[in-house]
Amino acid sequence: MKIPEFAPIPASLPATVPFVGPETLQRQLGFDFVARIGANENGFGPSPKAVQAMRDEAQQVWQYADPTSHDLRQALARHLQISSENIVVGEGIDGLLGLLVRLMIAPGDAVVTSDGAYPTFNYHVAGFAGVLHKVPYRDDREDPDALIAKARETGARLVYLANPDNPMGSWHAGAVIEAMLDGLPGNCLLVLDEAYVEFAPDEAVPQIAVDDPRVIRMRTFSKAYGMAGARVGYAYGHPQLIAGFERVRNHFGMSRIGQVGALAALADQEWLAHVRGQVISARAKVAEIATENGMFALPSATNFVAVDTGRDGDFARRLVKGLEAKGVFVRMPGVAPLDRCIRISCAPQTEMSVLAETLPQVLTAL
Amino acid sequence: MKIPEFAPIPASLPATVPFVGPETLQRQLGFDFVARIGANENGFGPSPKAVQAMRDEAQQVWQYADPTSHDLRQALARHLQISSENIVVGEGIDGLLGLLVRLMIAPGDAVVTSDGAYPTFNYHVAGFAGVLHKVPYRDDREDPDALIAKARETGARLVYLANPDNPMGSWHAGAVIEAMLDGLPGNCLLVLDEAYVEFAPDEAVPQIAVDDPRVIRMRTFSKAYGMAGARVGYAYGHPQLIAGFERVRNHFGMSRIGQVGALAALADQEWLAHVRGQVISARAKVAEIATENGMFALPSATNFVAVDTGRDGDFARRLVKGLEAKGVFVRMPGVAPLDRCIRISCAPQTEMSVLAETLPQVLTAL
Repeated sequence: MKIPEFAPIPASLPATVPFVGPETLQRQLGFDFVARIGANENGFGPSPKAVQAMRDEAQQVWQYADPTSHDLRQALARHLQISSENIVVGEGIDGLLGLLVRLMIAPGDAVVTSDGAYPTFNYHVAGFAGVLHKVPYRDDREDPDALIAKARETGARLVYLANPDNPMGSWHAGAVIEAMLDGLPGNCLLVLDEAYVEFAPDEAVPQIAVDDPRVIRMRTFSKAYGMAGARVGYAYGHPQLIAGFERVRNHFGMSRIGQVGALAALADQEWLAHVRGQVISARAKVAEIATENGMFALPSATNFVAVDTGRDGDFARRLVKGLEAKGVFVRMPGVAPLDRCIRISCAPQTEMSVLAETLPQVLTAL
Repeated sequence: MKIPEFAPIPASLPATVPFVGPETLQRQLGFDFVARIGANENGFGPSPKAVQAMRDEAQQVWQYADPTSHDLRQALARHLQISSENIVVGEGIDGLLGLLVRLMIAPGDAVVTSDGAYPTFNYHVAGFAGVLHKVPYRDDREDPDALIAKARETGARLVYLANPDNPMGSWHAGAVIEAMLDGLPGNCLLVLDEAYVEFAPDEAVPQIAVDDPRVIRMRTFSKAYGMAGARVGYAYGHPQLIAGFERVRNHFGMSRIGQVGALAALADQEWLAHVRGQVISARAKVAEIATENGMFALPSATNFVAVDTGRDGDFARRLVKGLEAKGVFVRMPGVAPLDRCIRISCAPQTEMSVLAETLPQVLTAL
């Protein structure tokens, strides 16, 4: 007997895995990584106050989380000086991107992104049978003019832009993003992924009225707040757009411990400033290691550094595999010409030392 | 300026909230509940070993969870004596039901459930423009014959059945469920929601080959394992069906702390047995309180009890509101004739005493 058929859209999809997790790689390799610096996780960790709050909440995990994430939305509203009606909390930006695509995209609708940008967004677009149009990066940055031109050409419903960018770490001035809004075609939404915004210089943060209906901004506790494993992200924008998520989201999808941790993390802006300082030092350290090894670190406004190997994608892929085999987990961009780089997450000194020691060994072996 | 239009299906949906959380009610009432016994949460709590495991993991929350939930799936496979390829882990049964509906249902496809059964399933069916057909309960139980007849009549793609049932606490013998499979129309899947199965008698658990392509079973750590706030559920069935989830799920959607907690909870079957005993005692206590107040507790194979008020839905609704006003959170079935009942979660002695004290006061006032 065969299983019942999938619906037509899922039936047409491959069983994509946007990212292979380090645990899977470890099982394949047969040992654990010594330096886990591939997923842009924040090894400087969450605020100790957030850790304590999560510990204290463990006993209460028999209770569902508040499905409205009321307290966290209130705190975010105060932090951003907006209203809680502008904010939806979800299971990381990944989860929110999936909901947004579902909310906006009918089969055949055009969506624009950059070739080499976030694969999970592309996964969601494919998952709802949207038609993805990609424009190339330009000078290792996403290309706002090309994105807008492609959106107008295709009548796109969504344009995705990460600022700062992943996987390159590059960024645009906020004014550039603001100008993009005026270029968008009608009935199109700019998806501004600001996962790394807390690491960016102030001028990279656009000033946009929160009820501007042309943009939705997504942020997360996974990166600067060091809570990737808690799955707490949020989106903010026009209240009618935000209210739309109530039609499609998994209302009881949030972890109670994650909510409590995020609340405590947000309240500890001192820790955030401390982490930001640590990340800036680690970026310099990665750049130093790159230079020592005849490579070049691209400028970064994130907690990772794209290191230009000066060679091609094949070389970079062998380098990534070589590092993995020595216990160093890094990743790299998926498409040329970005894939001449490897992407290294900023981490505490222990991991940086392992990198400094391992990288020349692997390069020599190659 | 208006916001960009939603896609046609979400545009047609109301901003449904399947359940109003107790936190929202508390904010409306202006005080906290003294007895939180309305959401079938398990106040006997998670295994102390699970609590400890979650506490110990809090510091590691900077790492994403393993997107394959490998260790938890392996442990579940051992526990159920099946293969990990038969199992997908997700953000609670709520999340998995949404993914399953997305995987199976195209707009206009027929889906069958019972009138008064789980609203969140209905929410997901509406969310993907499935057409829901409902059959009435029969003697306060879901009606397998009627479900199958309706499925055959409508050419349904999915039939939903919870065994034991929520909101009535009733159950069918496993053999009845097994027989349903032979009655299903072709190309149709039975969604067997076993959220409460650990509280049920052995004979309520059907014996079905794990690769039977006609059924998918869903279970959770939210109820008997006392971890509702951790959002860890799982589905198991034919490996091709389970593999289908890879096409649509949020791969990095699981909380790391939840995974670790679930693993420890599963390993502590002694605690599960202890909780089961406590729940059985609490069921008897609820029945006793019901009797003392001239009402009647329906038999239950779950951690809640449907208490028949002997009156109608209007009365039961006033009773629920009256209890809320006195600090006792309970819920009730949504449709007649089930709505003559109120639904009370089994809880420790403190909550049971509050109930015993409050219920006669509210009844007198009514």
